[in-house]
Amino acid sequence: MTKKIAIIHGPNLNLLGTREPEKYGSETLAGIEARIRALAAELDMEVSFFQSNVEGEIVTTIQRAADTDGIVLNAGAYTHTSVAIRDAIAAISAPVVEVHLSNVTARESFRHTSLIAPVCRGLIAGFQGDSYLLALRSFV
Amino acid sequence: MTKKIAIIHGPNLNLLGTREPEKYGSETLAGIEARIRALAAELDMEVSFFQSNVEGEIVTTIQRAADTDGIVLNAGAYTHTSVAIRDAIAAISAPVVEVHLSNVTARESFRHTSLIAPVCRGLIAGFQGDSYLLALRSFV
Amino acid sequence: MTKKIAIIHGPNLNLLGTREPEKYGSETLAGIEARIRALAAELDMEVSFFQSNVEGEIVTTIQRAADTDGIVLNAGAYTHTSVAIRDAIAAISAPVVEVHLSNVTARESFRHTSLIAPVCRGLIAGFQGDSYLLALRSFV
Amino acid sequence: MTKKIAIIHGPNLNLLGTREPEKYGSETLAGIEARIRALAAELDMEVSFFQSNVEGEIVTTIQRAADTDGIVLNAGAYTHTSVAIRDAIAAISAPVVEVHLSNVTARESFRHTSLIAPVCRGLIAGFQGDSYLLALRSFV
Amino acid sequence: MTKKIAIIHGPNLNLLGTREPEKYGSETLAGIEARIRALAAELDMEVSFFQSNVEGEIVTTIQRAADTDGIVLNAGAYTHTSVAIRDAIAAISAPVVEVHLSNVTARESFRHTSLIAPVCRGLIAGFQGDSYLLALRSFV
Amino acid sequence: MTKKIAIIHGPNLNLLGTREPEKYGSETLAGIEARIRALAAELDMEVSFFQSNVEGEIVTTIQRAADTDGIVLNAGAYTHTSVAIRDAIAAISAPVVEVHLSNVTARESFRHTSLIAPVCRGLIAGFQGDSYLLALRSFV
Amino acid sequence: MTKKIAIIHGPNLNLLGTREPEKYGSETLAGIEARIRALAAELDMEVSFFQSNVEGEIVTTIQRAADTDGIVLNAGAYTHTSVAIRDAIAAISAPVVEVHLSNVTARESFRHTSLIAPVCRGLIAGFQGDSYLLALRSFV
Amino acid sequence: MTKKIAIIHGPNLNLLGTREPEKYGSETLAGIEARIRALAAELDMEVSFFQSNVEGEIVTTIQRAADTDGIVLNAGAYTHTSVAIRDAIAAISAPVVEVHLSNVTARESFRHTSLIAPVCRGLIAGFQGDSYLLALRSFV
Amino acid sequence: MTKKIAIIHGPNLNLLGTREPEKYGSETLAGIEARIRALAAELDMEVSFFQSNVEGEIVTTIQRAADTDGIVLNAGAYTHTSVAIRDAIAAISAPVVEVHLSNVTARESFRHTSLIAPVCRGLIAGFQGDSYLLALRSFV
Amino acid sequence: MTKKIAIIHGPNLNLLGTREPEKYGSETLAGIEARIRALAAELDMEVSFFQSNVEGEIVTTIQRAADTDGIVLNAGAYTHTSVAIRDAIAAISAPVVEVHLSNVTARESFRHTSLIAPVCRGLIAGFQGDSYLLALRSFV
Amino acid sequence: MTKKIAIIHGPNLNLLGTREPEKYGSETLAGIEARIRALAAELDMEVSFFQSNVEGEIVTTIQRAADTDGIVLNAGAYTHTSVAIRDAIAAISAPVVEVHLSNVTARESFRHTSLIAPVCRGLIAGFQGDSYLLALRSFV
Amino acid sequence: MTKKIAIIHGPNLNLLGTREPEKYGSETLAGIEARIRALAAELDMEVSFFQSNVEGEIVTTIQRAADTDGIVLNAGAYTHTSVAIRDAIAAISAPVVEVHLSNVTARESFRHTSLIAPVCRGLIAGFQGDSYLLALRSFV
Repeated sequence: MTKKIAIIHGPNLNLLGTREPEKYGSETLAGIEARIRALAAELDMEVSFFQSNVEGEIVTTIQRAADTDGIVLNAGAYTHTSVAIRDAIAAISAPVVEVHLSNVTARESFRHTSLIAPVCRGLIAGFQGDSYLLALRSFV
Repeated sequence: MTKKIAIIHGPNLNLLGTREPEKYGSETLAGIEARIRALAAELDMEVSFFQSNVEGEIVTTIQRAADTDGIVLNAGAYTHTSVAIRDAIAAISAPVVEVHLSNVTARESFRHTSLIAPVCRGLIAGFQGDSYLLALRSFV
Repeated sequence: MTKKIAIIHGPNLNLLGTREPEKYGSETLAGIEARIRALAAELDMEVSFFQSNVEGEIVTTIQRAADTDGIVLNAGAYTHTSVAIRDAIAAISAPVVEVHLSNVTARESFRHTSLIAPVCRGLIAGFQGDSYLLALRSFV
Repeated sequence: MTKKIAIIHGPNLNLLGTREPEKYGSETLAGIEARIRALAAELDMEVSFFQSNVEGEIVTTIQRAADTDGIVLNAGAYTHTSVAIRDAIAAISAPVVEVHLSNVTARESFRHTSLIAPVCRGLIAGFQGDSYLLALRSFV
Repeated sequence: MTKKIAIIHGPNLNLLGTREPEKYGSETLAGIEARIRALAAELDMEVSFFQSNVEGEIVTTIQRAADTDGIVLNAGAYTHTSVAIRDAIAAISAPVVEVHLSNVTARESFRHTSLIAPVCRGLIAGFQGDSYLLALRSFV
Repeated sequence: MTKKIAIIHGPNLNLLGTREPEKYGSETLAGIEARIRALAAELDMEVSFFQSNVEGEIVTTIQRAADTDGIVLNAGAYTHTSVAIRDAIAAISAPVVEVHLSNVTARESFRHTSLIAPVCRGLIAGFQGDSYLLALRSFV
Repeated sequence: MTKKIAIIHGPNLNLLGTREPEKYGSETLAGIEARIRALAAELDMEVSFFQSNVEGEIVTTIQRAADTDGIVLNAGAYTHTSVAIRDAIAAISAPVVEVHLSNVTARESFRHTSLIAPVCRGLIAGFQGDSYLLALRSFV
Repeated sequence: MTKKIAIIHGPNLNLLGTREPEKYGSETLAGIEARIRALAAELDMEVSFFQSNVEGEIVTTIQRAADTDGIVLNAGAYTHTSVAIRDAIAAISAPVVEVHLSNVTARESFRHTSLIAPVCRGLIAGFQGDSYLLALRSFV
Repeated sequence: MTKKIAIIHGPNLNLLGTREPEKYGSETLAGIEARIRALAAELDMEVSFFQSNVEGEIVTTIQRAADTDGIVLNAGAYTHTSVAIRDAIAAISAPVVEVHLSNVTARESFRHTSLIAPVCRGLIAGFQGDSYLLALRSFV
Repeated sequence: MTKKIAIIHGPNLNLLGTREPEKYGSETLAGIEARIRALAAELDMEVSFFQSNVEGEIVTTIQRAADTDGIVLNAGAYTHTSVAIRDAIAAISAPVVEVHLSNVTARESFRHTSLIAPVCRGLIAGFQGDSYLLALRSFV
Repeated sequence: MTKKIAIIHGPNLNLLGTREPEKYGSETLAGIEARIRALAAELDMEVSFFQSNVEGEIVTTIQRAADTDGIVLNAGAYTHTSVAIRDAIAAISAPVVEVHLSNVTARESFRHTSLIAPVCRGLIAGFQGDSYLLALRSFV
Repeated sequence: MTKKIAIIHGPNLNLLGTREPEKYGSETLAGIEARIRALAAELDMEVSFFQSNVEGEIVTTIQRAADTDGIVLNAGAYTHTSVAIRDAIAAISAPVVEVHLSNVTARESFRHTSLIAPVCRGLIAGFQGDSYLLALRSFV
């Protein structure tokens, strides 16, 4: 049966491709989403996309994805500061996979702590846009 | 004279009753609000309700409640991370009572610190929906 | 059925009304106890009172209140230092509500940690003598 | 050539003049903006203003100011908690000057850390409304 | 020659057998003392027993046991908070063996530090009532 | 061209399937390796396997894999304590992907820090045996 | 007019002269008190003495000395752990001088913090029995 | 039935009797093992011995002792640094008793933390060679 | 009326222009002082200059500037270590503005703390030599 | 025989009487020195005085006082930051008594640590100018 | 008389010359050993060499060098994590000089702590291969 | 060509030979300088000497040695507290070697941190007066 997967991007990810390409790569968010769609088709998945700079809108979107088969969440900066997003993840039963484009452990120390990781199923980081694709495959 | 009390609920409280009932109880937010309304009538109080997942909207709502006789605030996850909400409370003269459904000190260590508590009049935690009712009575 | 509630006051609370009234109010302990008795009568509760400056006597009194319907405990300074009182609370099945007259989170940092809170049912702080009355109501 | 400068105010700054005047002065935000406009005219600058209580809207506004000649940012409470705003500043090439009305280092310890300072060009704090004017001059 | 050994039990140990049996076992303090007496007879030792919930009484009892051949001390909760008991142990020349029923290192972090351990001869923990018996044997 | 990938397992992974299955799953190491071999064949990769309980042997094996196209490393317990393994990874140019079977961030706090993560290309954790397969795919 | 001064000794000070003389000197408590009495006579002061190993009894004694002209307090081990004694000192208006026989800053790190010092008038440490005599003179 | 007990000694214990005798006593490892054998005979136990300076070999030996009736483990320096040994202990069902010759809490602060204690049944420390004998008796 | 302003430069600022120009710019101290003099003339201010590598001489110079209308202080390295300079600032009534050439928050962590900031009127950092000019303007 | 005592004052003490009188009293340094001279005459002591704002000059003066019968040192702000003064004290055999005018433990947290206290004979703090007189008496 | 000196190299030093040459220089371990041999001949010393990636083998080698006239130890990564190597050094009487090729204090913070330094005679770091030669000369 | 090397001694080193000889040896500073001169002659180096107790004078001397071929710096107590000396070292291009007579890592914890080490070329500690000679050789 076709699985429904929600892809949620956090703050500043709308700038992808223009913002600090040495850290995040030169691929745009649209480019990544196109590749996700292609893989989803191959894996018989139906994907939806959402991006916001507002923490609370990400909370709401996670709540609304409660009935999907899985969520791929790149919470960006909120990864390190948001108890509210953590609580939203814990409140629903759909499994969440945390992804990051860069290897956050190799950056500033305040990025080494993820408040959301303990309530996610798993974590994939460091593979640029491929992080999303690997996360998608984890739901197979 | 009838007192005006604003009841403000923070992120994920809209899920009440469905989310981790072993921590938060099985009563829904609507159920709690009905009980609050009943008690308010008994105590000759006029209550208003607001819920948001967005930190900044809670800030704005607190600002707007500056002329009430009191605020009952369950800031949820923002209790532990929001300097902005703290500043809003400090900026108005209406007294604020912080409430929590669960006993937050018995949970993860990042929930043991409340950024807003020092600027509130008092704190009531651990009585599920009754926490709100006790807070209402504290304004008598 | 009439509920039996034990009210336990910790160190220095015997000085209430004379000690730093800007923090603790000008009401004496006797005054608070009179108000508690009045409310207890109204709520059909039977209350007992105990005050001690000795940590171990508070431990013993908690043990002896094991068969009450609830304990209202203002452990005062021992709130922040006593593992022994914590262990006594955990050892009995009667529910304990922690109360404080002042908003301890707005005071010195060593008062921000409560060793006993995690094993109590709930916490009420900041309402001067009314903290006890709200605690009593929580057992209704 | 006329420089374009974006002035961005964070949470609770809309209350300026009414909120804790002993800390923030009695001048309103409108009053400060009038003075900024006057100085901008003198320095041949074109200024825009934005205020929000929502962290994510500040992120978005910084992104939109990417093509200005400079940003004067008073992030208020988000100064101490927002990695998202930091990332937005780092993502654009327009220089950002951090301003504060009060001397934040003389206040609570959680206000001593600025998450955004390391990615700003400079910092001006403690001169009430004049902090903005000095920041404007720094772009000359 | 018959050795004199003082057995000293700290706060809440009088509840043994009733209190949290999954941590402390179901044997009562009387039961343990009976087993200690039996082993003492076998090892030609004379044992005395003392239990108190009051830190200062434990201090005094340790002082009074200064002329025994050894002390077996389960200081309970005071293990983690009492400099006074530590000083009493250091002040006398009789060797003290610290015992615990449970494996305290597997419990809350505030139980991981023993203020008294550095001035004791040795430490035995985790064997329920047998901890006392092994301590007794250590004086052979 | 066929890629050469070295799979390196750290301490206690030889017990897989028998050890704490609620954390690590019931699949044995042999089972995982069979699945890796199958996927490698599909992806035209040549894989080698190594397991050791000795930190220094893992260091040596990493050194010897310097000319592969990539290393999949589950350093197990040494993830959190081994500077030597970190130095070996930094000393070679072959990219290393860190994998974990369980979501280590949801376990004891000493497992939250990875000494090796900052010198790895990426990190995949929480998908049981599938963590290895996703890591293999990351080299495509 | 003759001043009334209360001298309060904390836990284990009854052992003075026998306990670790290299730290505390060989003078007994009786010897020190005799010297205090002699100096008090010379300075026209009336002195009372109290020693206890029980924290709560020291609290009570401080409360009872509220109407003296001053208190000389050697709280011993409770100096470092007792919020209750601190609160008793803060609750009365009689000035308290903290004394120690040894130089506590040259000993274990847990003795470097005095919970009671901030609410005392002054501190005298390191002069063995003379610490008391200097404290007495401070009330002239 | 004869119980099988494995005795495992960690790094540098092969030097016993020559190394810092003021800390570890003058008895050699052979001497201790002889005494263990004698007591084992008396208690109808069958004991095996293993010593290694290599952390990973201790891991392997613990794995191999999975089917014994108990392990007496003096992990020496690895007590404070080895997550791998901890994981090995947690992975098997045979109970492990941690022993130390000296009272480690009276030594350098980095020896105060035991990574393995929380997964052991119990802990015996400070009785020189007798620590092993007491551990053996704990399996009776 | 002409304002008197004292400009005080701390250690190593005499090297300006030669020392790490990527951090401090290539302008010499003499160059900056010339620009300060020019602006002072324009603003009708009288400025004096002092530079020293000796902490105590800076303390003395601040004391001597007690009757000026303001002090512009770049305490350099002593910003982070000198309680003595802090005390001198607190001891006088002339307002002090702290300046830095570079954005110290973007450098080593020991430069993130300013011991003197809490007793200064304000802080200006990151504008190279212009930091001094902006500070001068703050006294208008 | 007449004792020689060196009185050494640290930074900013030359301002005494003018600087923050609510903390340090209104007596000038000259006034205190006059009182010291008077008491010294009475006690048959010969006193010398030295004040400096320069840490290194205090170090040198302590070295030069090596052959006195004692040093009374108010190191002021350097109390909390100077390892060099500590080393000078440790290097000479003359006993040093640390004095403070105010009760430093009741002020900012960075004043709670004294680097020099552990190498001094004793400590007297909180008695304004009398602190020096009590210190003088301690050498009798 | 010819002195016997053992040279012991820790993990990853076998890669010297190929590994991160900007940190460790381009000289190989063989090259350094040749230079050591030459200097040893000049100084009439007999040198032995050992390299291992296994912590426990380094422990064993130190034990075996107990009868040499000195050990030159570059423990590499184990410098920062190995209590076992520290214990081996403390257990023998031969003096040990700790060497490092690079200036470890200028690198990651986890390399700033040396567990072995306190039990070594001295430390030489930062001179690439010359660090060994200077260590050799220290035994003259 | 003859190399010019500046030898700089920090506070209290003028006392060498008299001060705590068990830590610093009995050789005087003059004795060490004589040995340095002898070795310098042998190595064709020209050496200058400077000692001061004043931090700022050491800063100035380092600045003046900017054109030497190297500096041997024993900053003594300022090693642990002086950002100003660190900045002076970083500001010049002459290489600096940090030396210590004693093994500072084996002493008080505040001596374990060197603020200057990260900007020095290398570090030599623990060889008494020979530390200087080894440092001199490092410039060959």
